[in-house]
Amino acid sequence: MAGTAELDYPLVNGLPALREALAGYLGRVRNARTTPDRVMVTAGFAQGLSLLCEALPLLGIRTLALEDPGHSGQRRFIEQSGMHTVPIPVDAEGIDVDRLRESGVRAVLVTPAHQFPTGITMSPQRRRQLVDWAEQVDGLIIEDDYDGEFWFEPHPRPSALQSLAPGHTVYAGTASKTLVPGLRLGWLVIPDHLSHLLTRIRSRHDLGSDGITQRAFAELINTGMLDRHLRRVRSRYRSRREVLLQAVAQQLPQAKVIGSSAGLHAFLQLPAGVDESALVAAALRRSVLVYGAQRYQFAPGVRPAGLVVGYSSLPLAGLSAAIFAVRDALDEQAPGARPALRELPVTERTGVLLG
Amino acid sequence: MAGTAELDYPLVNGLPALREALAGYLGRVRNARTTPDRVMVTAGFAQGLSLLCEALPLLGIRTLALEDPGHSGQRRFIEQSGMHTVPIPVDAEGIDVDRLRESGVRAVLVTPAHQFPTGITMSPQRRRQLVDWAEQVDGLIIEDDYDGEFWFEPHPRPSALQSLAPGHTVYAGTASKTLVPGLRLGWLVIPDHLSHLLTRIRSRHDLGSDGITQRAFAELINTGMLDRHLRRVRSRYRSRREVLLQAVAQQLPQAKVIGSSAGLHAFLQLPAGVDESALVAAALRRSVLVYGAQRYQFAPGVRPAGLVVGYSSLPLAGLSAAIFAVRDALDEQAPGARPALRELPVTERTGVLLG
Repeated sequence: MAGTAELDYPLVNGLPALREALAGYLGRVRNARTTPDRVMVTAGFAQGLSLLCEALPLLGIRTLALEDPGHSGQRRFIEQSGMHTVPIPVDAEGIDVDRLRESGVRAVLVTPAHQFPTGITMSPQRRRQLVDWAEQVDGLIIEDDYDGEFWFEPHPRPSALQSLAPGHTVYAGTASKTLVPGLRLGWLVIPDHLSHLLTRIRSRHDLGSDGITQRAFAELINTGMLDRHLRRVRSRYRSRREVLLQAVAQQLPQAKVIGSSAGLHAFLQLPAGVDESALVAAALRRSVLVYGAQRYQFAPGVRPAGLVVGYSSLPLAGLSAAIFAVRDALDEQAPGARPALRELPVTERTGVLLG
Repeated sequence: MAGTAELDYPLVNGLPALREALAGYLGRVRNARTTPDRVMVTAGFAQGLSLLCEALPLLGIRTLALEDPGHSGQRRFIEQSGMHTVPIPVDAEGIDVDRLRESGVRAVLVTPAHQFPTGITMSPQRRRQLVDWAEQVDGLIIEDDYDGEFWFEPHPRPSALQSLAPGHTVYAGTASKTLVPGLRLGWLVIPDHLSHLLTRIRSRHDLGSDGITQRAFAELINTGMLDRHLRRVRSRYRSRREVLLQAVAQQLPQAKVIGSSAGLHAFLQLPAGVDESALVAAALRRSVLVYGAQRYQFAPGVRPAGLVVGYSSLPLAGLSAAIFAVRDALDEQAPGARPALRELPVTERTGVLLG
């Protein structure tokens, strides 16, 4: 039953019932260290990021470091807010903290659970280094945990980075991947010293989020329905990822899927010499939409070609067919390329957008 | 059935289905002149106003004129955004356009249907003057139509001011009064020349509003359920207003309800010499929450005392009891005041907050 709390003017930081449910949920599933009063409900991570981009300059921070490769839409969003960005390379363990330190910036946006787009999970050593950096420069880590609920590796999923340094981390989560992006429901876990500032900025943007949606999401958490839903879709996405990997092994032995088995997309590293743009275009002519890795590379310089393939909205048969079409497209570039055998009626919706 | 349009990342300006439904609805019930592409769905009027406060300085407008008396919460909200405000007096016909012209500002926020808090409906002459002003100074009128759906006068409700000057008016509506504030659902109708700018600013704040709530509201409009709901609550609010007026006539003959019979609150003008703050405090001791007119007065200077009484959430019997308590409180100030007879278990939720 919805009552005054949901129907009347809401609290700008969110419905107390949802903030309490989220604090418990994030503690339980991501080991986040928080209390309900440090949770803010936002219109997706986009609004959270917008508030942060308004807050950081007030703290004297005008540049935000980003992972490279990274989310080009997010980078644009951040720069449109007036913040500068500086790309920091990602290696097999995650963001290069030495390079981050050299950059002199005091705030960084990272995706430790499942780096976007490479899929790499930040190593324990790298997490420790990043936290040391934040403590030394009195800096801020923004942890975008956009798909942290989806983990298919046999070993346990690492805790949220926030658990290592709750005073230096803004943790950001979203219902965009677990439910649907259209809900525009996200949340921040905010360190004490930023809480008042972010609330003040938020209350200049709007008066809070839809109370009925908030109440419904609190119910999903409290009744265990979200857990059940996640178990169901997790198993579905795991199968899709497995089928995708099998298809890649069979059809594209020259490619390699890197990163953790997690999330809703895979990163295919292609052999040197592949013309990535031509491959993406050739795949699209076969009705398969994949994104080239170049799209996500910020610093200039040639890097190995790669493809980002989303598998959240394709049935199993479609996935195999899509990889077949990519092989077909790749063959066009190979010496003695065969002509495409057929046009496949497959459309791939891919790319993980800004939560 | 919700589909990709509602569930996937939304269009930042709103779901096409809702923008189309709103364009039809606003044309039908408020004679607004618009097409769906000029409607933006917002998180209540608060977000719309926040976007406008960010847009106006980019047009060289750093001061927004406000009605005086007016909405003190809105004024604070606007000033916190960095805009300056200048109060312009309201008389029996609405905002004083001569004073507005003298102020030299180029943007004004008005409540033509039912001025907040006085309840005055802007006269046709004053509307014409205001539109002439906007055309002459190339200015902008922000029309806050916060309770335009509630009209109880026998003569027809005047059209939205926007219909007279769609190129110089941003019309703002909200579901906060017709349904509940907790939905955080509002809309702007934007002149062509501002449309791109406001979309650009919006897309720096968030990625759009909750698609499921938007779809549900479009259904309410398209199925006629909103109309039926409004017929029902309109008749309920009309009765409450009538009972309130009767109680005032009987218990407080020295007070006068001014303004149109419309909306969800009434403005009681009190006789000269009444100590407004003492009256509000004495009413509160009797568990009746009313707001003194002073709360809404911006420019310094003594003006007649008044009370703002909301009647949207009190049953009929409670309204009479509340006015009885106000009389009782007023009697404390009169020579030969009687002691209060009893404490009434009535709580009045009043004041029309920022849509």
